[in-house]
Amino acid sequence: MLGTFCVRVCSGFRATSCVRTLHSLPGITVAQIDEEVAKLLELKVRLGGDDGKHQFVLKTAKGTRDYNPKQMAIREKVFNTIISCFKRHGAETIDTPVFELKETLTGKYGEDSKLIYDLKDQGGELLSLRYDLTVPFARYLAMNKITNIKRYHIAKVYRRDNPAMTRGRYREFYQCDFDIAGQYDAMIPDAECLKIVHEILSELDLGDFRIKVNDRRILDGMFAVCGVPDDKFRTICSTVDKLDKMPWEEVKKEMVNEKGLSEEAADQIGEYVSMQGGMDLAERLLQDQKMSQSKLACAGLSDIKLLFSYLQLFQVTDKVVFDLSLARGLDYYTGIIYEAVLTQAGVAPVSNEAQNGTNAEESVNVGSVAGGGRYDGLVGMFDPKGRKVPCVGVSIGIERVFSIMEQKAEASAEKVRTTEVQVMVASAQKNLLEERLRLVTELWNAGIKAEVMYKMNPKLLSQLQHCEEAGIPLVAILGEQELKDGVVKLRVVATREEMDIARTDLISEIRRRTSEA
Amino acid sequence: MLGTFCVRVCSGFRATSCVRTLHSLPGITVAQIDEEVAKLLELKVRLGGDDGKHQFVLKTAKGTRDYNPKQMAIREKVFNTIISCFKRHGAETIDTPVFELKETLTGKYGEDSKLIYDLKDQGGELLSLRYDLTVPFARYLAMNKITNIKRYHIAKVYRRDNPAMTRGRYREFYQCDFDIAGQYDAMIPDAECLKIVHEILSELDLGDFRIKVNDRRILDGMFAVCGVPDDKFRTICSTVDKLDKMPWEEVKKEMVNEKGLSEEAADQIGEYVSMQGGMDLAERLLQDQKMSQSKLACAGLSDIKLLFSYLQLFQVTDKVVFDLSLARGLDYYTGIIYEAVLTQAGVAPVSNEAQNGTNAEESVNVGSVAGGGRYDGLVGMFDPKGRKVPCVGVSIGIERVFSIMEQKAEASAEKVRTTEVQVMVASAQKNLLEERLRLVTELWNAGIKAEVMYKMNPKLLSQLQHCEEAGIPLVAILGEQELKDGVVKLRVVATREEMDIARTDLISEIRRRTSEA
Repeated sequence: MLGTFCVRVCSGFRATSCVRTLHSLPGITVAQIDEEVAKLLELKVRLGGDDGKHQFVLKTAKGTRDYNPKQMAIREKVFNTIISCFKRHGAETIDTPVFELKETLTGKYGEDSKLIYDLKDQGGELLSLRYDLTVPFARYLAMNKITNIKRYHIAKVYRRDNPAMTRGRYREFYQCDFDIAGQYDAMIPDAECLKIVHEILSELDLGDFRIKVNDRRILDGMFAVCGVPDDKFRTICSTVDKLDKMPWEEVKKEMVNEKGLSEEAADQIGEYVSMQGGMDLAERLLQDQKMSQSKLACAGLSDIKLLFSYLQLFQVTDKVVFDLSLARGLDYYTGIIYEAVLTQAGVAPVSNEAQNGTNAEESVNVGSVAGGGRYDGLVGMFDPKGRKVPCVGVSIGIERVFSIMEQKAEASAEKVRTTEVQVMVASAQKNLLEERLRLVTELWNAGIKAEVMYKMNPKLLSQLQHCEEAGIPLVAILGEQELKDGVVKLRVVATREEMDIARTDLISEIRRRTSEA
Repeated sequence: MLGTFCVRVCSGFRATSCVRTLHSLPGITVAQIDEEVAKLLELKVRLGGDDGKHQFVLKTAKGTRDYNPKQMAIREKVFNTIISCFKRHGAETIDTPVFELKETLTGKYGEDSKLIYDLKDQGGELLSLRYDLTVPFARYLAMNKITNIKRYHIAKVYRRDNPAMTRGRYREFYQCDFDIAGQYDAMIPDAECLKIVHEILSELDLGDFRIKVNDRRILDGMFAVCGVPDDKFRTICSTVDKLDKMPWEEVKKEMVNEKGLSEEAADQIGEYVSMQGGMDLAERLLQDQKMSQSKLACAGLSDIKLLFSYLQLFQVTDKVVFDLSLARGLDYYTGIIYEAVLTQAGVAPVSNEAQNGTNAEESVNVGSVAGGGRYDGLVGMFDPKGRKVPCVGVSIGIERVFSIMEQKAEASAEKVRTTEVQVMVASAQKNLLEERLRLVTELWNAGIKAEVMYKMNPKLLSQLQHCEEAGIPLVAILGEQELKDGVVKLRVVATREEMDIARTDLISEIRRRTSEA
């Protein structure tokens, strides 16, 4: 019955994914079922509902989601960790508008430009929603003639991609960028970016991770010495970029069959891209007969050596790997590139992707959580005189981090609090609203986080229940007797312990008890 | 020369405002001149620049702006004050996508719907940028069948208005909303909203303010007893709403001449809308021969009385005025409405508006900084079965607050710090980069906010200058001798005092000195 219904609505709405999913039940997850059910119910509403009347489609736009209070509490915690790190490293912050002139974004994203959201032409300028934070940052630097800045920017960006929301991928999602712009001595800011990634991933406690490092110049030099024609560098590079999702044999097939590379060149590339190491590998490749023929590769390799020497001082070499297979898609990188991946199996959000891989090793790599690199040419594209401002930066894959943290919270016994209320002002009898309001005012005015129920005569039990549910640690209970005695009964929700506190001591007692927690 | 150029480009681009402004130089401000210059330079670039080549228009979209680090520091401070208050009152927070299905926004904003930004139809759903946070909130409640919540939401909203950016009005701007949804006893949540406005405006220290209060039911009852035809309530109401910008005589003229109200009815309204007071006024009007004929008005007046009794307990009646001229434009209000205005003269952002007023008193009223009210019907518009969720809320006019705070910072001698760096790790001689990186790593790992210059051999003077400029309080200076002695020279930037600190004591010494500040 469900199958029939599904096929019917799908055929009309091209929601083919639901057919596919339902035909492969064994691999399905609960989250996927929820998503499919939501789709079907939406389609049902669109088809007219039970009574045939037109009704509101109660949903958010495709590929977007609301954040509920629990998700927001997690989001706030993650942001605090990340922002603390950025601030510890002396970063300022800026903000730019959510839309830019369309032409500001034109020619920056290659093929991905088709994923840009345009605004309707309602007269005036042609506008597009920002696709990332890097291009607006470059526009900001050029527009304000800023030649050096260390800034972070956390904001939402927009891509008309086919979202896989169960895997933490959306059309509206946060980016969380840290960049250092300025003409500085080689590899010092680059090394600090990696130090930052190391600090953030350690503090977020997402499990073990690796930071892969490579350099665009090494890739380009490698392509040159392996005999890749100049005009094929970019397309071969984007094939190499698939090595984290596809085994080498398939990548090679794509190079040879689809991109017309000679088998010999592909095999030579295959040898290099299997190499991983540290400073020693950079030294070995500088001696490599073929690689050393490329000045570009040598420049990149020397910088990798220098980078590793700084990373040693920063105490982060335990997680950093020089990996010649790292290619990163974006056109604008000019030097060092890097990407951090979680290496622990069992982190779910991207496990579906791994199922497609035939290589068992692939399923260990559970996806990128940070990436970045050096882009020395982008700001110059905006400057009327082409003045360059060298930049290096890193973007934290915050949505994937949210997904993992949400799953962890889900799995944990500990409740996520969505408010910070320290004390509930309650009454044990009727007709005490005024007294409750008087007391809660005292607490608010003293800076204490407090609540009352918005009822004339709430039951004591329902007031206490609310505290249990919301995780409020203390209740200040008023009754006729307490008012007469000039005291308040303070109840500790966790232990159900109750004590009379003189009204004049209440604030300091609450402060004492909540600062302990 | 400038005049000629301006006229030429304006005629081609309908930027008539620049002609007008340049013809009335006496009333011009520096900010306006900057805005005009920016417009002209943009037009120049559009016209091809000096060499006739097409160039990037380096600007943000009309009516939008970047926030630079100084503005962000101010914004962060304002947000912290406001969010602390919301949290003190036990609010959770949510977030919704920046765009909604177009039909979600349809029919919610009356005439202002023309100001909604639509996204281009690129296949798929028709989308619009959110116009406020209230309609997405109502959609969220209905969609998730939430019947009670106390939440805040701070996010940007979008209106294709004609912006007056010099007065803090933009096409992309923040809203900062606090709302209480749920079936509760009358006026308790409403009073808490006013308490919150009182706390926030007091803590932001923007100068004296008043919170005007009225009730939709009192307005409607008043219109009825004054003889306004039912179908003219809304349009007469929106004319009354102009009383804060126009003198009564003009408002009356609009009622009679444009809206066809009888002179007699208008005069009767005129009498009522000049009334201001407190609980006493509500009591008097409950006895008023005419007003008491309207059940609706009486319900509103009784609630105003109840509201004031709670406001007394909340200790905020000093700033609250029951003002029958307060009308607020939005259709969806159903009960109590309120608006906070700064009453101190000389708060600049809206002074231009006051120049148009003929009434001297108008120039004292420098504009609304918060507003809200009760809207019991909005969520029901989204519920398939029309189930109502009563709501009351307040929106802080945060952009105006930013403008005022920025002006205050501008006028103040105190420098706005844009980073929180506590210590700069500097070197007194050459070849100490490695030692600097080693030390800054120690500090970062201990959670201290620290910086190094990204140079192999920076001059000591330029390192110290950077500290002065960025307001960094301490410098940890390394030299050959210090390294030999196992010490660091700690310099206090403000006093230029220097002392040798044992390397092992450095972290605790820095902590001690920066926690003092």
